[in-house]
Amino acid sequence: MSAAGSPAPAAARADARPAARADAAAPTVVVVGAGFGGLRVARELAGAPLRVILLDRHNYHLFQPLLYQVATAGLEPEGIARPVRAILRGQRNFEFRMAEVQGVDLDARTVRTDAGNVAYDHLVLALGGETNFYGVEGAARHGFGLKDVDDAVAIRNQVLRCFEEATLEADAARRRALLTFLVVGGGPTGVEMAGAFAELVRVVLVKDYPRLDLADVRILLLEASSRLLAAMPPRLSATAADTLWAKHVEVRFGAAVEAYDGSGARLRGGETIPARTLVWAAGVRAAALAGTLGLRTGPQGRVAVTPTLQVPGHPEVFVIGDAAWVDDGGPPHPMMAPVALQMARTAARNITLALRGRPGEAFRFRDPGSLATIGRRAAVARVHGLSFTGFPAWVVWLVVHLVQLIGFRNKLVVLINWAWDYFFYDRAVRLITRR
Amino acid sequence: MSAAGSPAPAAARADARPAARADAAAPTVVVVGAGFGGLRVARELAGAPLRVILLDRHNYHLFQPLLYQVATAGLEPEGIARPVRAILRGQRNFEFRMAEVQGVDLDARTVRTDAGNVAYDHLVLALGGETNFYGVEGAARHGFGLKDVDDAVAIRNQVLRCFEEATLEADAARRRALLTFLVVGGGPTGVEMAGAFAELVRVVLVKDYPRLDLADVRILLLEASSRLLAAMPPRLSATAADTLWAKHVEVRFGAAVEAYDGSGARLRGGETIPARTLVWAAGVRAAALAGTLGLRTGPQGRVAVTPTLQVPGHPEVFVIGDAAWVDDGGPPHPMMAPVALQMARTAARNITLALRGRPGEAFRFRDPGSLATIGRRAAVARVHGLSFTGFPAWVVWLVVHLVQLIGFRNKLVVLINWAWDYFFYDRAVRLITRR
Repeated sequence: MSAAGSPAPAAARADARPAARADAAAPTVVVVGAGFGGLRVARELAGAPLRVILLDRHNYHLFQPLLYQVATAGLEPEGIARPVRAILRGQRNFEFRMAEVQGVDLDARTVRTDAGNVAYDHLVLALGGETNFYGVEGAARHGFGLKDVDDAVAIRNQVLRCFEEATLEADAARRRALLTFLVVGGGPTGVEMAGAFAELVRVVLVKDYPRLDLADVRILLLEASSRLLAAMPPRLSATAADTLWAKHVEVRFGAAVEAYDGSGARLRGGETIPARTLVWAAGVRAAALAGTLGLRTGPQGRVAVTPTLQVPGHPEVFVIGDAAWVDDGGPPHPMMAPVALQMARTAARNITLALRGRPGEAFRFRDPGSLATIGRRAAVARVHGLSFTGFPAWVVWLVVHLVQLIGFRNKLVVLINWAWDYFFYDRAVRLITRR
Repeated sequence: MSAAGSPAPAAARADARPAARADAAAPTVVVVGAGFGGLRVARELAGAPLRVILLDRHNYHLFQPLLYQVATAGLEPEGIARPVRAILRGQRNFEFRMAEVQGVDLDARTVRTDAGNVAYDHLVLALGGETNFYGVEGAARHGFGLKDVDDAVAIRNQVLRCFEEATLEADAARRRALLTFLVVGGGPTGVEMAGAFAELVRVVLVKDYPRLDLADVRILLLEASSRLLAAMPPRLSATAADTLWAKHVEVRFGAAVEAYDGSGARLRGGETIPARTLVWAAGVRAAALAGTLGLRTGPQGRVAVTPTLQVPGHPEVFVIGDAAWVDDGGPPHPMMAPVALQMARTAARNITLALRGRPGEAFRFRDPGSLATIGRRAAVARVHGLSFTGFPAWVVWLVVHLVQLIGFRNKLVVLINWAWDYFFYDRAVRLITRR
């Protein structure tokens, strides 16, 4: 399980810049990606006799589960992002580099970045996922994904701009298209997005735009299968749909989008829906980089790894999270934070085992359940086999998300925002910040 | 003073869209700009028998005096911006339109915008100001102004990116240029910017970048004259300079920038300073639109108005704030919020007087003093003729800014940020959000 035919240790080979402080004798672990998985690996290795270098093209860790609240003007992006350097400031064997990874030279054990090469002894690829438009015509070009800060702010700007334009639009059909919002995909992201969106419109924007006729506003949740939240028990799926209907979201089943051109969507079967805004929450795949490394990939473009999360033939390379596919005959793991966090723990443990020449442990996923909120006092939750709905589920959702959010200040900011919006029926961040 | 040779009332003429709710018989006041002046005019006219239409290209009002704190990672932009519709939600005779004004047809009494024409009976131009680079070679292209949210976020991104790049830069000279920051102009903006910046570096970033040598970091405040804060008593100017020096800001007098190319600045006299970042706080002029209206302009491109703030020959047109120059033989008013707010009150009053066929009142500026903060517990203040420095001035500064910030939620958010940063020596918003 340890290095096979190892070349010279990373510290002895070419590097972008000599390390000023790190222990030059310690083996180098390079972690690519500062999402849930990458960050956890770095933390788990805190006490190990290793030099840990984390690479990310952003200087912050993003709490993706609350991204839809940025898109619906409930939170500012700064509330759910935290600088990596701030998070891992106290960790002595840790080093951060803001760089975009361009490739990996597996034989030379080097990561190529736009800021030079970085040599490694062990590599952990925690590349994350990106929106999967499944090649639907026009969807990637005219629709909005929801995977990073730019996506979320773009959706917020788009929705608010549509309302502004609608107030100035004399033509009734064009005005209705401006006020029709399509959310594609009935998974947790789509359900939460549609619910938050309905509340933004019916609770807040209705007060901002007294001259607009609210009957012109349509929010549609388009799901190709016959139920929402496929990972939940059917009873919760039904509750979610009912709750959305009660908020005036049109939940459509068997509705597969075949094309979108920025002014309307065409569904399978021929129906077209004029709409100026489409949010695509119907799929995720591994980050594109995963497909360019010369490694074998499986479903959703994820890199095939052994049960110990190592790349076959390259035991010094680990892949975790959305970008990893454990090729053990079972179904692929869901692309969500708990999987990434648990894989990170396994990968970190297997690296320290390898240092001692011992074999790695197989990854085993313990499903903590899943949660989706649908607005004020409404959520569905399946936690350790128990199902909740309504107010109790909503409280569980709040607590789980607040606890997991990294950094006390972020927790405080988000809590204040939530309390404010809850008591004052407000969404304060409804700013159009870019043209 | 009332309409001379009035055409048909605005409501009877072509308009982008028929008003759904407004009293069609009421005269229309169009206000251009949602800054301090424009917003105040709209508010002052709340009870008047008028239809008030406010136009702005943004959907929010921005509290510009705290913009430098966004640029130095102390506040998120959302903390100092508030949607216009939220501010004026309760005002029944008020209407907002997000539109970019392209020109004014004075004879037809129509404002041309990218969202159609808007007819007026009275017009208030509150266009605001923009950065004045005085044609210094390369300054507008490679330097950063500080007048809107995009400017501030661009500076924050630039500064943090320079630190990230410096950690990866092996060449000592290039690293020093990355870590040299020039602030041009020793007025309140330049002084506050340099002070906040010095604290960001010496209190926060020093902890984030343990591998960087802090001796490589230089912050220079370049002032062409022989003192800072020319509007303050000389004693306060000297205190400001001493306080900045104590924070390791190099305060240079008689230092006029002649050219900047993105890698270095050339001063008059020939000295060059290698620096990858230059913030231009050396001048403001009226918004460019002011010069395209066919009206007579004076110093800083400001539109010449009568003492009653009306355009000569067009008594139905008022100009206020940064864009207005009262041509009464005296020096032009400073381009700052108190002037705009007081002019707004005069303009609103003169419009209501005109409705009753009475002559307008002349504008008279009551100077409330001025304030500049230079960091933790350090500020200089001149309030109603009294001078303060140090902790008392800092408290005055805090209170004045919190009170003037619009909206309770914004006050709360900003106060929490300040308290957090004060007690934890932090700047939480150090995110690089765009590439």
